[in-house]
Amino acid sequence: MDTPDVLAWRDGHIEALDQTALPHRVRVLRISTVEALVQAITRLAVRGAPVLGVAGAFGVALAVRQARLEGWDGPRLDAEINRIADARPTAVNLRREVSAVAARVPEGEAAVEAAALAVAECAVTASHQISRRGASYLRDACGPGPLQVHTHCNTGSLACLGWGTALGVIRALHEAGGLSRVIVDETRPLLQGARLTCWELDQLDIEHRLVCDGAGPFLISQGLADAVVVGADRVAANGDVANKVGTYGLALAAHRAGIPFLVAVPESTIDEATPDGAAIPIELRADSEVTVPAAPAGTKALNYAFDVTPAELVSAVVTEKRLIPRTAARR
Amino acid sequence: MDTPDVLAWRDGHIEALDQTALPHRVRVLRISTVEALVQAITRLAVRGAPVLGVAGAFGVALAVRQARLEGWDGPRLDAEINRIADARPTAVNLRREVSAVAARVPEGEAAVEAAALAVAECAVTASHQISRRGASYLRDACGPGPLQVHTHCNTGSLACLGWGTALGVIRALHEAGGLSRVIVDETRPLLQGARLTCWELDQLDIEHRLVCDGAGPFLISQGLADAVVVGADRVAANGDVANKVGTYGLALAAHRAGIPFLVAVPESTIDEATPDGAAIPIELRADSEVTVPAAPAGTKALNYAFDVTPAELVSAVVTEKRLIPRTAARR
Repeated sequence: MDTPDVLAWRDGHIEALDQTALPHRVRVLRISTVEALVQAITRLAVRGAPVLGVAGAFGVALAVRQARLEGWDGPRLDAEINRIADARPTAVNLRREVSAVAARVPEGEAAVEAAALAVAECAVTASHQISRRGASYLRDACGPGPLQVHTHCNTGSLACLGWGTALGVIRALHEAGGLSRVIVDETRPLLQGARLTCWELDQLDIEHRLVCDGAGPFLISQGLADAVVVGADRVAANGDVANKVGTYGLALAAHRAGIPFLVAVPESTIDEATPDGAAIPIELRADSEVTVPAAPAGTKALNYAFDVTPAELVSAVVTEKRLIPRTAARR
Repeated sequence: MDTPDVLAWRDGHIEALDQTALPHRVRVLRISTVEALVQAITRLAVRGAPVLGVAGAFGVALAVRQARLEGWDGPRLDAEINRIADARPTAVNLRREVSAVAARVPEGEAAVEAAALAVAECAVTASHQISRRGASYLRDACGPGPLQVHTHCNTGSLACLGWGTALGVIRALHEAGGLSRVIVDETRPLLQGARLTCWELDQLDIEHRLVCDGAGPFLISQGLADAVVVGADRVAANGDVANKVGTYGLALAAHRAGIPFLVAVPESTIDEATPDGAAIPIELRADSEVTVPAAPAGTKALNYAFDVTPAELVSAVVTEKRLIPRTAARR
């Protein structure tokens, strides 16, 4: 999974694995303009909350470089940087890292590049810390196992660099001999679970089964999971969690089954400025992602890309710095 | 929707709309042998719990005719009739109507045909009674509306002849001016919601939106449904409900949101011989329904076609004869 890189800064350009082409094709995009980056983010060629943070950081470096080459004035540069921050609304990491790196613009192009590279490096380090702390939490909560873990969407190397968040926790469990099997939701409409998570688990030789999203809650009710582990796109100040749509049903099922529901995220996903889940903007995407090809022509959809899980259904949030148990998350 | 018929007995053959071809092609199957019927049921060309009951009844007539034409002896005829009953395990209607009509075999071919046609006629009548009683229940429970109703899989004319069960309730609400919109789960892996329910609602000119299965619980939590209405493949004696996988998550969400979760079925779906949900056989179907085409080659799945919703999450079960409220269902 190290070659080609999921996302890298090379000679003033961004190189990104096109995640819409996986698992059947491994295609690398060379991104040289803000426009191309925004397109790649919008169509989910570049995706995953932590990776979006890094892409935002690289994007500022790209914008500064493009400003020099094309002679943009200050307002134009600001506008282009804002386009990157606005490319997707739910994952707070994107806007946060864009802002952090944009603050270095007055220091010049080299400082901006260095800041962007530091964001990428921190993401990798954080993912290993999250993975180990999360695995340790699950061992404490569930016993030594080996555990069967249910997950949703893709939260591995492809989403986070390093080991990932939720999938990093799973990988850490596996390396310690504490994992029996992963249950992977296919994650309609864009099938990140079926396409990306199965591909990563396959490469890591980790036993897994793919299931339809609707089956997850039932399988949990039947004892086919010892724990549910997911990532998130934003954690509000009160502990409510926005994540890929389909997460909330798993949280309800885990709560009823009495098993841990763990959210694994970098600190940058926790947004103290958003009081609760109701204040998180939920991206509404194109109908065609849902309606094509099965539904009759002209069918309308409601394609919310994320959902909100209330803090009281979350057993714990684990980050690179701390474990936030349920009570602390309910402020 | 009356031309061509969903399922009919014509000149000693079964004519069936091929439900795997909808909505893009309208193709009628002419089924003349037990083998062809079993194939059609197994691959879901003929599907829907009440329609499976009628198909089972017609199947016995088909078997008796084939026995005469091909000179089967008694044990062979019994074995062929059992093949029909065994074609799918979860929907009790299939086995029940096969048994009922098979009991008439000693009376001769004409009596068997008449009994099978009576099963079809009763299914149509029952669907109208279920529809009206269910709509009346929802008006009592939710107020005059107009109501927004969430449903799963396909439970309309295609599944039940007549108006349907859950979709019949929705149609009755619509005809009375009490419906604002239907939220339709796409119902992976075979997309009966996207393909069949959207097609039926389109033909009936009923406002609807298609959603991914994982989104249902979230939309319910956000107030986008006044009630959830589903059909079932078997209701156990204690009120536990087996229905298309994905139902249980909706029931959890409806329970938490405090909205009615109504199950609409013919009496023939209630199985007093099955004590509870744990005793209902859940069909495990081919991995390829889930893995093709998105997952990496060789990915294994867990493709349970149905799930079980505990009676305590069911607000009421409505049939052609009665309304069974929650307390009565918890025996």
